[in-house]
Amino acid sequence: MIELMFDSQVALGIDPGVTRFGYGVVERASSDPTRRTQLTARAAGVIRTDPNMPLPERLAIIANEVDALIAEYAPAVVVVERVLFQVNVRSAMATGQASGLALVAAARAGIPVVHYSPNEVKAAVAGHGAADKAEVQKMVKALLGLAEAPNPPDAADALALALCYLAQAGLVRAVDAGDGATASGPRPDRLAAAIAAAEARDRKALA
Amino acid sequence: MIELMFDSQVALGIDPGVTRFGYGVVERASSDPTRRTQLTARAAGVIRTDPNMPLPERLAIIANEVDALIAEYAPAVVVVERVLFQVNVRSAMATGQASGLALVAAARAGIPVVHYSPNEVKAAVAGHGAADKAEVQKMVKALLGLAEAPNPPDAADALALALCYLAQAGLVRAVDAGDGATASGPRPDRLAAAIAAAEARDRKALA
Repeated sequence: MIELMFDSQVALGIDPGVTRFGYGVVERASSDPTRRTQLTARAAGVIRTDPNMPLPERLAIIANEVDALIAEYAPAVVVVERVLFQVNVRSAMATGQASGLALVAAARAGIPVVHYSPNEVKAAVAGHGAADKAEVQKMVKALLGLAEAPNPPDAADALALALCYLAQAGLVRAVDAGDGATASGPRPDRLAAAIAAAEARDRKALA
Repeated sequence: MIELMFDSQVALGIDPGVTRFGYGVVERASSDPTRRTQLTARAAGVIRTDPNMPLPERLAIIANEVDALIAEYAPAVVVVERVLFQVNVRSAMATGQASGLALVAAARAGIPVVHYSPNEVKAAVAGHGAADKAEVQKMVKALLGLAEAPNPPDAADALALALCYLAQAGLVRAVDAGDGATASGPRPDRLAAAIAAAEARDRKALA
């Protein structure tokens, strides 16, 4: 089987946690005219670990899964949620442990890491930073042309993180060039507009 | 060179941090009559990373060093400081990232992990939970028969963590058996008494 890929780029999004560790792999094929959208979900899911297991084993299970995802999908970038607020120090420590192993896995594979805050991702995907889980799931489903909304929400959040990066890396530039707006660098909050514009171009091209 | 080791056990103590990551390797040789003390420092130091480097690379440097320490000293246990309080969420996240990679390294090597809080270690080594850095350094120097106090304090703290485990795993049992006290399981706050009693026995045996 021959797959035609033109400047394709894969991003691995990660919503870190010890009990639920969300991941989402999105591919952007920048110039494949047979596709209505340039963005395709390759994989999404949640790594769950048993709270009754010793913490080191739980973290090692997650680290091994992240290594396997990187080996299988060879992402050009790992996009990790930047967690700014936590209800308490204990949950901040746990989130740090989960995010840290993702950062180590990326660095060992020589892959750059990008961070977005939850509000940046929500604003980018759903248009406003206060979007709830259901809105993010619905928008990720629409943007990736999925038959169903990705579930659980951790998987949708991880896909949204990957989308957030790929859109600012490619589509936003196209919009900036096309609508006369001044490009002020890659800003994730332009994602919704960028994707809408890109899809309008795609529809015109396919019509 | 032939080294006689009888039931020797090595513990790797870790005081986790991203900017300064303290480690200390202590060996307990349970029945070597030529040694005044059964506890020997094999290695101690601090892994420092440049705050100007990207965080993933800093964490990978630390993870690689921890892997190297485990490979070189083959510890039977990794003793990691349990951090209960942090000034803020940001520092809790960083400490979580640093401790998490130590836990992953241990689990991948099949080595159990033990935690002690800072106050447990201070109480064990210096006799009271409010001991300051200088007191811990001084006591670690004395307990390990070092020519100088381990410096910086992170290295002393890491040695103290390893000591804390090795003492409760071995010496405490001897004290419990010898002084008629009821053994209530391994308690790190018995370390100072346990080591004093063990050293008194050693001095008597060597006299």
